[in-house]
Formats: sequence, C-alpha cells, structure tokens
Amino acid sequence: MKNEYLPTLESLVSALSKLPGVGTKTAERYAFSILDMDAKEIEELASSIQKAKSNIHPCPNCGLLTEDDECSICKDENRDHSLLCVITSPKDFFPIEKSRSFHGVYHVLKGTIAISKGMDAEDIGINQLLKRIEEEKFKEIILATEPTLDGETTALYIANCLKNTPIQLSRLAYGLSLGSRLEYVDTLTMERAFEGRRKL
Amino acid sequence: MKNEYLPTLESLVSALSKLPGVGTKTAERYAFSILDMDAKEIEELASSIQKAKSNIHPCPNCGLLTEDDECSICKDENRDHSLLCVITSPKDFFPIEKSRSFHGVYHVLKGTIAISKGMDAEDIGINQLLKRIEEEKFKEIILATEPTLDGETTALYIANCLKNTPIQLSRLAYGLSLGSRLEYVDTLTMERAFEGRRKL
Repeated sequence: MKNEYLPTLESLVSALSKLPGVGTKTAERYAFSILDMDAKEIEELASSIQKAKSNIHPCPNCGLLTEDDECSICKDENRDHSLLCVITSPKDFFPIEKSRSFHGVYHVLKGTIAISKGMDAEDIGINQLLKRIEEEKFKEIILATEPTLDGETTALYIANCLKNTPIQLSRLAYGLSLGSRLEYVDTLTMERAFEGRRKL
Repeated sequence: MKNEYLPTLESLVSALSKLPGVGTKTAERYAFSILDMDAKEIEELASSIQKAKSNIHPCPNCGLLTEDDECSICKDENRDHSLLCVITSPKDFFPIEKSRSFHGVYHVLKGTIAISKGMDAEDIGINQLLKRIEEEKFKEIILATEPTLDGETTALYIANCLKNTPIQLSRLAYGLSLGSRLEYVDTLTMERAFEGRRKL
C-alpha cells in the first residue's frame, strides 16, 4: 500500500509489520481494525504496549519475568526451593507451569551456548547460575534447555561444571509429543523415543 | 495463559487479542516479541497506534481517510470531477486506486443498507450523497458497493433515487466473486471489474 498522503497509516502498517509472522497485508488489516476501534480500546492497546516494556523486567534472582522486586516463584514459600529448573528463555516458564509438573524454582539463562553465533558460557550467564547453585544448596537440578543441538551442548556444559557435586542432575525426557502423527516424526526424535521406551 | 502475577502482560495479550483473527496464542507471541523490542521500536508502535486515531479522519467532502482538511483526491485538479465512484467503506479506496482503473472522485457511504441489521438509507448517509450529486453535476456515477445482497440492494436503491436524472449510472462488472470482500480483491480482478462495468 502506497499512501503518500496517509503517512500516519503507513507508519502504523510498518510498525505492525515488525510483529512476528505479520506481513504487509496482515499489518494493513490490523491497521484498519485499529482505525475502527474506539478511543478507549486504542488507549488500552497503546498504553499496554508501553507499560509492558517499562513494568516487566527479569527477576534479579532467577531471571523470570516479573513486575515486582522479586518474582512470585522466588517469593513463594510453598515451592520446593531445593529443586531447580534451568531454562534458556523466560517464555519457557509458561508451558512448564501450565503442565503443573514442576513445583521447584527456576533459573533463566540468557540463551543457549551457540558457538556459530558467538554465544559462549559467559554470554548466557553460566557463571551466575553456578554461583547461585553454590549458595542455595539444591538437591536436584533439571536442565530443561531446548531439545536442540545447542540446548544439548548447554546442558552437557553445565553437567560437566557440576560433575564433582552431589547434586542430582536430570534432563527432560525426549519422545513423541502427545497427539503427534507417527508419519511426521523426525528421525532423531524417533531414535530417542525407541531408546527411552518404557515397559508396560 | 494465567499470569495473576503479570497483569501488564495479561492486559497486553488481551488488548492484542482484539485485532482481527488474533487468538490468545498469537497475541502471546506478539506480546513476547514486544517485550523483546528495543525502546525505540516500542515507542514507534505505541505512538503510531495513538496517532492513527487522532490524525486520520474522514474527508468532510467525500468520506475518504485523510490527515488534512480535505483529502488529496478532492483537492486533485487532475482527477475527473465529473466521474463519481460510490463505495461503502474508506478501505475500498485502496484496491481501486491500486488498480489504476479509476480517475474520478469518490463518495464513501457509511456501510450498506441492511434491513436485518437495522441499517437503512438514512443511516448510511444516502441523503448526503444525493445532495452532493445535486450540487456537483456528475456525468457518470459508478456504484461500487460490495458484491453482496446488501451491496446490490444499496446500489439499486441509489439507482432508483436517480432514475429521473440524465446521469449515467454503472455498477462494477461481475468478475468479483459473490460474497467476497472488496478490500481484499486483487488488482487484475479489479481492473476487469472496472472495464466491464454495466449501465443500470
């Protein structure tokens, strides 16, 4: 859309195009729907975008997203503070919590070790993790890094740093995802699913 | 996503869910990508949303979107001011202009006559259209209402109001598929539709 005479609409379309998976057509659709919104909805949308960035920040202790000094997980005395789950993005917290499978506390790394992208252990904050492990005496640490080559590397690196400690380390199970169709499962996942097969 | 402890994120997700075709999952994806944006991008997005509503308004003469006192089409002396195209939404302007099939001026109705929704001729501003037609002496009027039952009804209603005038009335050719929305019509179809417009 060329709107030489509607620069505001054009800059709105261009700003909306920066959202993931949004091309010009979709951005235009969003822009028009924004023009149709009433003043209150517009204000809610614009201010929630601004507030999100200013109010939400990483918990200084564990790195989860929070609006307070410390996140609600770190503050929660009902969580098991001897059980740590290491994730590589604050987003990974949500599906884990939703599954209600974990009742310990978290530590968020700043990504995965990826030599090709020039990300090493220091860049993703492994030192802070090791320091926290030294201070907080965990019994078990679940290395819930991504099931990718870089995620594997990161988990193995951490495991190696902790090999002389009595802490029990674990890694999430690999296998078929529920509801997936066998014909589309990739070779690596299939290998892992066979390796990890359980007796019935 | 239940984020009792992240109300800002939750209100951002809920505000983004109001965009057309955006469910909670997509809104969450957008919200996280907004958290990852830098301050400048956030400000651009938020301010372009606010400005869109405050800067863009209908042209008082024809109803097209404009940021000025009068839209660039009404002001343009190179356009054919004896040729009028009647549309039912300001969005319909964009695909028509893109097709370069039309060099006259526009009039935007406030929707289509839709008895089932309680929209009658007065609600969509047919009176203002007739008044403008009386004042501006058009030679031809193209009734480019939507190719739907309500759009047909609206075109026939207008044609009926103008039956005692010497103005040539036409309607975009079918070639547009029935039930489709004008704002998404591709350029070629739009060209054919202009070429094959029929006298009423």
